[in-house]
This record gives sequence, structure tokens and C-alpha cells, in this order.
Amino acid sequence: MAIYAVIMAGGSGTRFWPVSRQSIPKQCLHITSHKSMIQETVDRLIPIIERDKFYIATGNHLYEPIRQDLPDIGFILEPVARNTAPCIGLSMIHLLHKDPEAIVLLETADHYYQDEELYRQHLLGAISHAATHNNICLIGIKPTYPATGYGYIQQGSPVNDQGIRIFEVQRFVEKPKLDTAKQYASSEDYLWNSGMFIARAQVMLDEISLYMPHLYAGLMKIQTALKKANKTDKKDEKVDIVTREVFESLPAEEAISIDFGVMERSKNVVVVEGIFPWDDVGSWASMDKIIPEDGNKNVVNGAEYAAIDSSRNIIYSTSKRLITLIGVNDMVVVDTADALLLCPKGREEDVKKIVDKLKQEEMQRYL
Amino acid sequence: MAIYAVIMAGGSGTRFWPVSRQSIPKQCLHITSHKSMIQETVDRLIPIIERDKFYIATGNHLYEPIRQDLPDIGFILEPVARNTAPCIGLSMIHLLHKDPEAIVLLETADHYYQDEELYRQHLLGAISHAATHNNICLIGIKPTYPATGYGYIQQGSPVNDQGIRIFEVQRFVEKPKLDTAKQYASSEDYLWNSGMFIARAQVMLDEISLYMPHLYAGLMKIQTALKKANKTDKKDEKVDIVTREVFESLPAEEAISIDFGVMERSKNVVVVEGIFPWDDVGSWASMDKIIPEDGNKNVVNGAEYAAIDSSRNIIYSTSKRLITLIGVNDMVVVDTADALLLCPKGREEDVKKIVDKLKQEEMQRYL
Repeated sequence: MAIYAVIMAGGSGTRFWPVSRQSIPKQCLHITSHKSMIQETVDRLIPIIERDKFYIATGNHLYEPIRQDLPDIGFILEPVARNTAPCIGLSMIHLLHKDPEAIVLLETADHYYQDEELYRQHLLGAISHAATHNNICLIGIKPTYPATGYGYIQQGSPVNDQGIRIFEVQRFVEKPKLDTAKQYASSEDYLWNSGMFIARAQVMLDEISLYMPHLYAGLMKIQTALKKANKTDKKDEKVDIVTREVFESLPAEEAISIDFGVMERSKNVVVVEGIFPWDDVGSWASMDKIIPEDGNKNVVNGAEYAAIDSSRNIIYSTSKRLITLIGVNDMVVVDTADALLLCPKGREEDVKKIVDKLKQEEMQRYL
Repeated sequence: MAIYAVIMAGGSGTRFWPVSRQSIPKQCLHITSHKSMIQETVDRLIPIIERDKFYIATGNHLYEPIRQDLPDIGFILEPVARNTAPCIGLSMIHLLHKDPEAIVLLETADHYYQDEELYRQHLLGAISHAATHNNICLIGIKPTYPATGYGYIQQGSPVNDQGIRIFEVQRFVEKPKLDTAKQYASSEDYLWNSGMFIARAQVMLDEISLYMPHLYAGLMKIQTALKKANKTDKKDEKVDIVTREVFESLPAEEAISIDFGVMERSKNVVVVEGIFPWDDVGSWASMDKIIPEDGNKNVVNGAEYAAIDSSRNIIYSTSKRLITLIGVNDMVVVDTADALLLCPKGREEDVKKIVDKLKQEEMQRYL
């Protein structure tokens, strides 16, 4: 049984504007280190997954920038974006076509791990479970603070008695308000839903067949096209046409996330209790958790700066300009060659709104 | 009797960093309009003073940038900076050498006038008084708010009974605290000290002779050198040498402002009650008074910007970059090709401190 990794990288990451652009998606940004986030994701998994068993699942428009970062990695291209369930279904079909016994780790390109070795130990525990059970192993994370930006999973009974701890799922809960999040974070039986999972590809496909009949029927058409293409050597063209037809004709109620489509309905989902430090690198606020403070309690990446009475700022620069601050606190300053962003901490989610505004106001050249 | 203008422009205006630099002094900035501030100053006075009767008093290091703005205007160059009294004394010597009857208006290059015609009417009133009295006519300004950044002049008895109102000086007071400033601004007999004055050059020189004996002795040496130079046609060199000797050997107690050196001691100072809107363009805070607010109550000059929930900001840009703000209020944002400044309103005076910090921290290339 071989282990495959599918890295979902279909988003554009507008919350990282002005560094992320239409042609430079978030996963290609060098936010967490000198490598791009997607390069880091691959490198982090290389100790347990062979390089030729990686696939990037993304859209056509992101193929080129990501390929430049990872020229030797395979791609599974969605013809149009239809949320994560169809993307994952398509990936399962391609993996199964290659290897009917495939075990797959599904990751995204925007996770940050402080202790990579500990993370990989958890993955190996989950792989071991997935190899021997008809379960989807979701990776949960022990909360370290009352996050309101993540969904939670309430743990049920344990399903194993040694090594990495794995539990039944009692219930899924959506992103909570702060009071509820505090309750969850201080309790012993809630985990963050990281969105990562490990399963045999066939198990995942079987679950799709149970809960997403339209998607499943479409995936079977793609599977048939793949098999035919193998015989005729006219692989790509015909498969691409069928895939596009399937994606474009998918009813809206099945163009949904894998969480809604499968995880929250399936009776075969278990959750791994992840005790490794983890963060979703979702907005500029994440910088605080990734980059150490300097002597002024400012988190600075790439910028030459001078400050007076200024602290707890996030300063990120891809320009060569000097940034100076006087009496500025708790501010996010992102500087690029052609655009500057300023917002106080706590408003980072609204960077999306600025991007929307630029679209409306005929400033598309900055997108 | 001819009217001359001496425009003092010796300062570098570090409070306008990063737009002002060592090679681009404040007076050459285009802050108040599309013209530089020193060009504006000349143009504002041209209706009442002939172009060949203007002089710029400044230091050698600022000669070149200012000359580029005003190629046809004469210069009086201070060999070293010794505050305003020596600068004014030197100017009087040069004017008197050219025209013993000269009446001089002394202005600086950083004043802003909303109603230029009204301002000129006041000047003509003061010129008329100066032509017929042995007085120095200081221009006072009726306070429009309790400024703590200006000195005040308490008015005494009126010295004329028609036209522009002129008063004896009861007393000078230094920049007050806010409580006192409120008291002054609401009373009927305090004026801001604008620093401008009008006098016959000989009257000013006579007052210097009374209160600043070392300076006066030095000025007499320069006068002698000027007269000799006229005869020998070796004008510049010898005069320059003597001027440098006089400035460099001036005792510290006379390297002071004209306010301390003459105005506050002289019995021949009167004050014009200026009722025209006026501002000293002293820091980025001045932008609020000069540039109208846009629909978001932001004062914007030169910048393309997009904002959400952001108001009362001062945004000044000489770069071509897009500036975006989310939830940012009461902030000063100054953007240039190689440096960015951020400071909340109220901290604009501390821009000087950032400039000092750059000197210390080996970032001289930004000065």
C-alpha cells in the first residue's frame, strides 16, 4: 500500500493582498520562511511520502505559478472551482486509476507546523489506522486558545488504545462565538477541525457514493474516460472534456465542501487527537504566531524599519523601502512595490473587502 | 522708496521628512499647491513688490535646489547658520548697500494664506507706516484657535486711526500651554507672532546696533568690504571671506533669533493686527488646514487610495503606489519612492526624532 499526498491549492488567498495577486496565489508566497508555502508543504511531508506520489489539486489559472515552484510534482486540475468535495472526488479517481490500494493524505498549502516531526508522527499513526480500517481519519488539533476562526470536533469514544490517540466523532460544530470557543478550548473533548484527513482512496470514494450521488455518477464517467484513454493513448483530451462536463453539470447542492458533503454525514469518520502546534495561515494576523517578535514586540518580515514608541505591529514588506513608525501600535503594515496596506490588528479579514473594492473601482491592475 | 522682500529659507524642514530631504528642503516642496512653497511665496508678493527686489536668504547648501525653483531671484548666502538675527542683519547690509532708503518685508517660505489679497492689503498698510515712522512693523495674526505652537503678542494702544490697525506692543509671550492659549485666543488683545515684519532697513540696522553690539560691529565690517569691493570689482571673494569671519566669530549670545535679539527689547516695535487667515506650514498636521477633506473626511494629496471605514487621515504621496486603509483613523501616511512614514495625528512634531534616529542608525541614505 503506497501513501500519496494531495495538496489542495485552489484558493487565491485574497486576504494576503497586496502580496498575493491573481498571478501570485497565497500558496506561492514566502510568508513562513524563505520557501513558498507550497514548497514547504511538500518538503515537510517528504520524510514519509515519496516525491512522485505528490499531487497538487488546483485550478488551471494557478497551474503556471505553482508549477514554477514545484516543477517535478504532478497536478490534478479542476476545470472549474466547485468547492472541495468535487475536487477531492476527482483526486480519488485519479489516484485509484494509478493505484487501487492508494492511501491518501489530504493537506492544504496554508498550514504552519512548529514541530514537524511531531506532526509526521501523528500522520503515521493515522496512516496505520487508515490502512487497516474502513475509516476516514480526520486530523483534529488540541486547541491552544479559544479560536473563533475554526470549526470544532467533539470527540467520542477512543478507537485505539496505543500510540497516537484516535476517537469516534461525537459531533461537528461550526466556527463558534468567543464564549463558546472558550468553553470548548478549556474542555478536554473538543478539537479544532484542521480539514486534513487520511484514508484509503477507495474508502473516501465509497463514502462519496453514499452521500453525493450526482458527484459519484460524474466521477464514474471520469473513471471510464481514464480507462479508455489508457487504451487509446489519447488520454488528456477526452478525460479533460468529460471532467469539464461533470464539473459544469454538477448540481449546486453537491458543489459543496467535503465537510458538509461527507464528513458530517459519514459513519466512518474518526478523529486523530493532534497535540502538535498548528496554525492555519489564513490572514496577516497569522504572522504573529509564525515570526518571533523583535525587541520592540514588532513582528517584522523583509522590511528595513525605524520606529519610535511603536510596538506589537506586523510589518511585512516585499519592497526595498524604509518603513518608519512613530507612536503606531497594533497595526498591520504590508508594503509592496506598487501597493501599501494599513489596517489595525483585528481587521485582517477585511482585506478581502479591499480587494472587492479594487475590483469595483477599476483598479484591477492591483489585483 | 523702494520695497524689497527678503525670504528667509535657511531651514531644512525635517518635520516634512520623508518628502523633505537634505537636498530637497521644505521650501522646495509642493505641499500647498502645484508650485513649490518658495515659488508661491514670491508669486504671492509680486503684485506689490518688483521681481528684481526679491532676495532669498539661505545657506550655501540650499542655494542649488532653491535656485532651480527661482532662477531669476537674488540670493543672500549665510556662510554658516547663526539663527535669524545675524541672517537679517546681513540682509539689511546688502539691501542698504544697494538702496539706503530700502523698505524691507521679511517673510519665510512656509506660510500659507487663504486670502492673498487681504494679506497684501495688510502689507501695504504696514509699508505705509514703516515709510513714515522709525518703527519695525511686526505682523500679528488674530488667533482663530488656541494654538500652542505659536508665540503671542499682547496689543497695547493703537498707533493709527484708519485703515489697517496697528498697535503698540504690550508684551511678547512664548508658546503657551493649552489653557493659557485658550484664554489668549478668546481675549481681544492677543495676536499670534507670525515672525514677519516690515521696516526700513536702516531702522532695523539701528535697532541691531542698540541691542546686539557684536553683530553690529561685524555687519559694519561686511559693509566696508562691500564698499571696497565695488571699487575694485573683486566683489564676491573678499566680501565672502569677511562675512564668514564675522559669522564664525560671533559670540553665542548673539547667534540668536531676531525675536530675542531685537523685537522683545526694542522700543520701536509695533504690531499690525492681521485679520487674514494664515498658517505656518510647520508639519504634516498643517495639511488639514490647507487641503480640503474628501467625502471620507480624509485629506489626500498625490495618492491613489482605497479605504474602508477610514477617516480623518492625512495621506500625502510622491510615489505612484496605491495606498489602502482598513479601519484606520486620524493617521498621517506619507509615502515616497524609498520611504514610508506612519504616525497618528498629534505626533507630527516627532518626525524630527525619526530623522535623528536615521542619522544615528546609519540610514543616512534616507536623509
